[in-house]
Amino acid sequence: MTAPDAATVLACLRLARTDGIGPVAYRRLVRTHGSVHAALDMLERGATRISRSIGTLCPRDDALREIDHLQAMGAHLLVHGQPGYPPLLGRLHDAPPVLSVLGDPALLANRMVGIVGGRNASSGGVRMAESLAALLAAHGVDTISGLARGIDAAAHRGAMTAGRTVAAIAGGLDCPYPPEHDALQDQIARTGAVVTEAPLGTVPQARHFPRRNRLIAGLGLGCVVIEAALRSGSLITARMALDYDRTIFAVPGSPLDPRCHGSNDLLRQGAVLTENERDILRELPEFMEETTLFPMQAPPPALAVRGAAPRHETPPRAMPAPPPAPPPAGTDNLHEMIEGFLSFTPSPVDDLVRRCQFSTAAVLTVLSEMEIAGTIEFLAGDMVVRRPPPA
Amino acid sequence: MTAPDAATVLACLRLARTDGIGPVAYRRLVRTHGSVHAALDMLERGATRISRSIGTLCPRDDALREIDHLQAMGAHLLVHGQPGYPPLLGRLHDAPPVLSVLGDPALLANRMVGIVGGRNASSGGVRMAESLAALLAAHGVDTISGLARGIDAAAHRGAMTAGRTVAAIAGGLDCPYPPEHDALQDQIARTGAVVTEAPLGTVPQARHFPRRNRLIAGLGLGCVVIEAALRSGSLITARMALDYDRTIFAVPGSPLDPRCHGSNDLLRQGAVLTENERDILRELPEFMEETTLFPMQAPPPALAVRGAAPRHETPPRAMPAPPPAPPPAGTDNLHEMIEGFLSFTPSPVDDLVRRCQFSTAAVLTVLSEMEIAGTIEFLAGDMVVRRPPPA
Repeated sequence: MTAPDAATVLACLRLARTDGIGPVAYRRLVRTHGSVHAALDMLERGATRISRSIGTLCPRDDALREIDHLQAMGAHLLVHGQPGYPPLLGRLHDAPPVLSVLGDPALLANRMVGIVGGRNASSGGVRMAESLAALLAAHGVDTISGLARGIDAAAHRGAMTAGRTVAAIAGGLDCPYPPEHDALQDQIARTGAVVTEAPLGTVPQARHFPRRNRLIAGLGLGCVVIEAALRSGSLITARMALDYDRTIFAVPGSPLDPRCHGSNDLLRQGAVLTENERDILRELPEFMEETTLFPMQAPPPALAVRGAAPRHETPPRAMPAPPPAPPPAGTDNLHEMIEGFLSFTPSPVDDLVRRCQFSTAAVLTVLSEMEIAGTIEFLAGDMVVRRPPPA
Repeated sequence: MTAPDAATVLACLRLARTDGIGPVAYRRLVRTHGSVHAALDMLERGATRISRSIGTLCPRDDALREIDHLQAMGAHLLVHGQPGYPPLLGRLHDAPPVLSVLGDPALLANRMVGIVGGRNASSGGVRMAESLAALLAAHGVDTISGLARGIDAAAHRGAMTAGRTVAAIAGGLDCPYPPEHDALQDQIARTGAVVTEAPLGTVPQARHFPRRNRLIAGLGLGCVVIEAALRSGSLITARMALDYDRTIFAVPGSPLDPRCHGSNDLLRQGAVLTENERDILRELPEFMEETTLFPMQAPPPALAVRGAAPRHETPPRAMPAPPPAPPPAGTDNLHEMIEGFLSFTPSPVDDLVRRCQFSTAAVLTVLSEMEIAGTIEFLAGDMVVRRPPPA
C-alpha cells in the first residue's frame, strides 16, 4: 500500500474543511471535476456554479497547521479515495472525505460490528454489551462504538478483554467526551483506534453526533442495538446502518423497561433477534469482498477535466474499467436528454449515464446545474429524483 | 339455539370415551358412516374394519353415569357438531368430540386469546400477564389459560379484574390441579368457565397436558407466550396454535434470563412482538366469521349410511348444503380413481371428492380401507398422502 501524496491530502483537507461542503457535495465536486485538485482549482477561481452555496475556502495554512498538529500527537489523516482509507466506509455515497485517527488506522479495515445503546444502561444491558463484544472479539470480529456512557463503554471494555476496539467520537481527537472517559479513550487509542471526522479542537455538540453515528454505521458490517429507548440516538445509528445495507441486530428486553422499547421496536421492524454472539456471527458476511471504490481512485486524465467539464466523450463501458480516450461527439442535447429520462421516481445516476451515452462527469455536471436550479434532488445511494414544481 | 338431543349426546360420549378413538378417528368414523349413531352401530356390530384397532366400546351405563354426575355438579357436556359447541374449536380437524364445562359454556364462543408461559415466572412476567389479560378484557377479549402456576394463574387473575376468563384443564372437572389452585378454579367456574376433555375422576398426568394445550390453542384467536423457556410446554401450545393458523404473540425478554429463551425464539421465528395489549388487538381478526362446521352438522340421510357405506351417489355440490338425494351411478372404479389421483404430495380429501365425483362418504370409506391396508396416511387438515412402499 502506497501512502497518499502530501499535496493530495492537503487538497482533500482544504476541501473537506470548507463550510458548506459536506461529504456528498465533496464527492460530487471531485467526480464532476475529475480530481480533488481540479475541484479545488475551480473553487479558488469561483468557476463552478456550485461554489455559490459554499463558504470561504479553507486556507492552505489552516489545513497545514491541522496536519502538523495531528502528526505531532501521533495521529493519522485518512483521505477518501486514497490508500489507507477503510474500504467498507469508502463505498458509501456520503463517505467522510477525511478521517483523523489515533492508534492503528489499519484496524478500521477489520471485520467489525457496531454495538450501541443507552447511556443509562441496566446492569443486564452492560453485561450483554461486554459479553457480546468479548465473544465477538474471540471470533475475530472487532467492535466499534461511540465511547458514550453505558452500553458504548461496556462494549469497548468487553472487546478489549479479548481483542481490540474502535471508538468513533463526535469531537476532535484532543477533546475526549464525556470527560470521565478520558482514560478509556487513551486506552483504546493505545490498543485499538479512535476515529473522528471533526477537526482538532472541536468540542462535541449535539450537531456533531450524527457524524459520529455515521462512522459506527459505516465502518461496521452490522449494528447491534442494546437497550435503546424510543427516539434515542442509537436508533438513529441503526437507521443509518440500515440505509447503508448493514444488518441490524437488536437484543430483546422486557416491555416493562422503557430502555428496551426502541430496541424491541427494531425487532418488530425485522432486526435480527440477538441473544448471543452466534446470532450475530451467523448473519455477518463471511468475508469482506474487495471493494471497488468510486472513480476517484482512478481519476480520468487531468487534461479532460481541468478548465471546463468534458462534454465530448464516448459512452462509458461497464464498470469498473475507466472509459477509453474519448473521441468527440455531439452533446448539445445532453441537458434535454437528462430532462427526458428523469422522473418523480428516483433513478440511479449510473442508469442515466448509461441511457444518455455520455460520460459520468458530463452527466454529473448537468445534474449539478439542475440541482442548483432546484429542478432535481440528489438522494442517498447515488439516486436523483425530479422535484415537483412549487405548488 | 336448540339443545342437542340426549340420545346423540350419549352416543357421542360413548364413542369419545372408547379407548383408541381419538378426535381424528372419531371424526373419520362419523364422516364415513354419516352419523354418530351409525358409527356406533357399526362398532357394536364389529362391521367396520377400523374397529380392529380400537378397544372395548364404552358401555352405555358408564356414559350415562358420567352424564348424571356432570349434571349433579352443574356442569355441561358439549358435543362436537351439536349446538353449543364452540365454533372456532369445532372447525379443527382434531376438534375434541366432547367437552365438559363448569361455569358458562357460552363463554367458550367469545373472542379469546390464550396467554401461556412458565410456572416459575419472574415478577415482571407475572405483571405482564396480569396487565395484558386485564387490558384485553377491557377491550372485550377474554383470556384462556391453563390454570398452572406462574404466568397462567397471573393471566386468569388479571382477566378477572376486568372481565371473565376460561381455564382449560388437563384432568377431570373434579380434580383441580395444581392443588393450591383449587380456590382459583372455583372462582373461575363461578365467573367464567372451566373446560376439559377428560372424564370426571381423571387425575391429570403428563400425557393429559397436550389435550389441555390444544384447547387453549384451539379456543383462542391467538396465543400469547410470556417467559417460556426452551423446550417448555408453552412452546408446544404455541406450535399447536400455529398449526391451527392462529396468530402467535411473544413478549420479549432479556437473553440473560433463560426463562425467556423460548419466547424470544418464537420472535425469531416470526411471532408478533408484544409489549402491550395494542400489539395483540391490532393483529386479531376483527370479528369471528360464522363457522361452517364439518358435515356432521348436516348428516346424510340415515338410510344411506346404515348397513354399508353408500356407493351410489351424485357428486356433492359446493358446501355447505347437503347433497340432494343420490341417483345411482357406476362406482366400480372408485378405488382405482382414487389410486390414480393420490400422490406422495398430500392432497385435501375435499379435492379427491371433487375429482372423483363421488360422495364424501364413499370416498372416505375407500380411503379408510386404504389407510388400514397401509397404502395411504391421513394428515392434519383433512389431507391424505400416499405412503411409500416398504424399502
